[in-house]
Amino acid sequence: MDRDITICEVGPRDGLQNARTIMATADKHRWIGALAAAGLPEIEVGSFVRPDLVPQLADTAEVVGQALTIPGIVVVALVPNAKGAERAIAAGAHKLTVPVSASRAHSLSNVRMEPLQAVEQVRRIIELAHTAPHRPTVEVGISTAFGCSIQGHVSEDRVVEMAAELVEAGADELLIADTVGYGNPAQTRRLLGKVVTVIGTTPVIAHFHDTRGLGLANVAASLDVGIRRFDASVGGLGGCPFAPGATGNIDAEDCVFMLESMGFETGIDLIALAALRERLKAWLPGERYSGHVA
Amino acid sequence: MDRDITICEVGPRDGLQNARTIMATADKHRWIGALAAAGLPEIEVGSFVRPDLVPQLADTAEVVGQALTIPGIVVVALVPNAKGAERAIAAGAHKLTVPVSASRAHSLSNVRMEPLQAVEQVRRIIELAHTAPHRPTVEVGISTAFGCSIQGHVSEDRVVEMAAELVEAGADELLIADTVGYGNPAQTRRLLGKVVTVIGTTPVIAHFHDTRGLGLANVAASLDVGIRRFDASVGGLGGCPFAPGATGNIDAEDCVFMLESMGFETGIDLIALAALRERLKAWLPGERYSGHVA
Repeated sequence: MDRDITICEVGPRDGLQNARTIMATADKHRWIGALAAAGLPEIEVGSFVRPDLVPQLADTAEVVGQALTIPGIVVVALVPNAKGAERAIAAGAHKLTVPVSASRAHSLSNVRMEPLQAVEQVRRIIELAHTAPHRPTVEVGISTAFGCSIQGHVSEDRVVEMAAELVEAGADELLIADTVGYGNPAQTRRLLGKVVTVIGTTPVIAHFHDTRGLGLANVAASLDVGIRRFDASVGGLGGCPFAPGATGNIDAEDCVFMLESMGFETGIDLIALAALRERLKAWLPGERYSGHVA
Repeated sequence: MDRDITICEVGPRDGLQNARTIMATADKHRWIGALAAAGLPEIEVGSFVRPDLVPQLADTAEVVGQALTIPGIVVVALVPNAKGAERAIAAGAHKLTVPVSASRAHSLSNVRMEPLQAVEQVRRIIELAHTAPHRPTVEVGISTAFGCSIQGHVSEDRVVEMAAELVEAGADELLIADTVGYGNPAQTRRLLGKVVTVIGTTPVIAHFHDTRGLGLANVAASLDVGIRRFDASVGGLGGCPFAPGATGNIDAEDCVFMLESMGFETGIDLIALAALRERLKAWLPGERYSGHVA
């Protein structure tokens, strides 16, 4: 597949962790199958969190197993800690995504660790993954990189320093996340530009939320500093349960539309995404669906 | 007032021309007064169109007269033709905005003229304005500059050529309008960059619609090529009645939020805009209100 932008769909993880409905495993598989058929190259299918804390994602091992039967997609699972990483590796996920927070307050409430402890844990997860037989890719995500709704300001220098530490620790990919939608285009260009300069060839993924309507403006600003990978979700589903006031991810339909109209190839069929959006509304009726194109 | 970005509010004209409600003249005056109090430096208060065609704007002369009593704002009125210009000049508007369409199909249905005839008419309007005692400013707006929902593609070269012709004809300011929300950030930067290069020092205003969610991304792209003036409307009210499928203007609240967070001064009080938005919902209950920040 010829594409110059890689979009990772995060709905089945990020969209479900707060959902009112516990979705049937079979429906999740239909959702992931439809995403793959629409051309999404990467799909974050679940999270290996404690099932008692997030019952919506209790079937993640099974969901990963089923997703692995779909050809042509990278199956991603979120792992909050080493125990989660062991489960994800055992389930056969192609890629683990590990969140680390740039904000101390967010780190304490999201993963119950100091940022430094979290980086130490990332080292352990990378070791687990890189010594596993199928050697899954480890993406490390720096949350609240643009600001935090609990703590407020987050130092850009701290984010850049953390990015360098994580790459040094062996992270295969780095995700920079505006968890609460605080970023603006000037900040995006400045922060991501610095990160890209400092970490060299390690791929950087940008993750924006549309809380203040600036998600796509930030995607466009990211393109200016060479970012070519983005997280998004069909219908804009998602939002961090530990970041008060955070609303949905950027809408995959709008994002694909913008990128394609700018001349980039995403490999994604917009009509198929719009059709999937309608099916999602039936599966998850209580959720908020954003976006303009559909 | 120290500001480096000028936002012109177009709601009282663009938001009302399609509105379900015929708003009382006194409420329009309250709306315009609240906009001025919130720091909006320019307000498009109405349009001198035929009252039988757009009854919502039949009181424009009176609205202009009342707006002129509010200190510190530039009172703008849309004029579709020379007759409208005469009425706007008689009413004392500080600025006339004259639409000319880059798309032949849109021009025929919007102003019932070929684009060339429209440019001829602009010359006549400029002459009327510049020989009037209070010499109102003439802004000429090139509609459908980014594409047309009737005709489809619009040639960028044609837009640039038209911009040069209009400046040569004596336009004081040039507005480049993405009437139907077709523009993307790459196109915005390319087209507006060309226009700015060709026309020199004449101020350029960018007017975006948020039909596909790219309005703010296009504002950010415009900043890159030096544009510092934008049209917007509180609540994202508006949309062209002659361009099928066109939805609201960019939301003034989100636009101000983005610009201020990027470090620009707009001179506008965001809290006051959010309060006005709530009053508008009471005045115009049947309308669609967009935006994230409020």
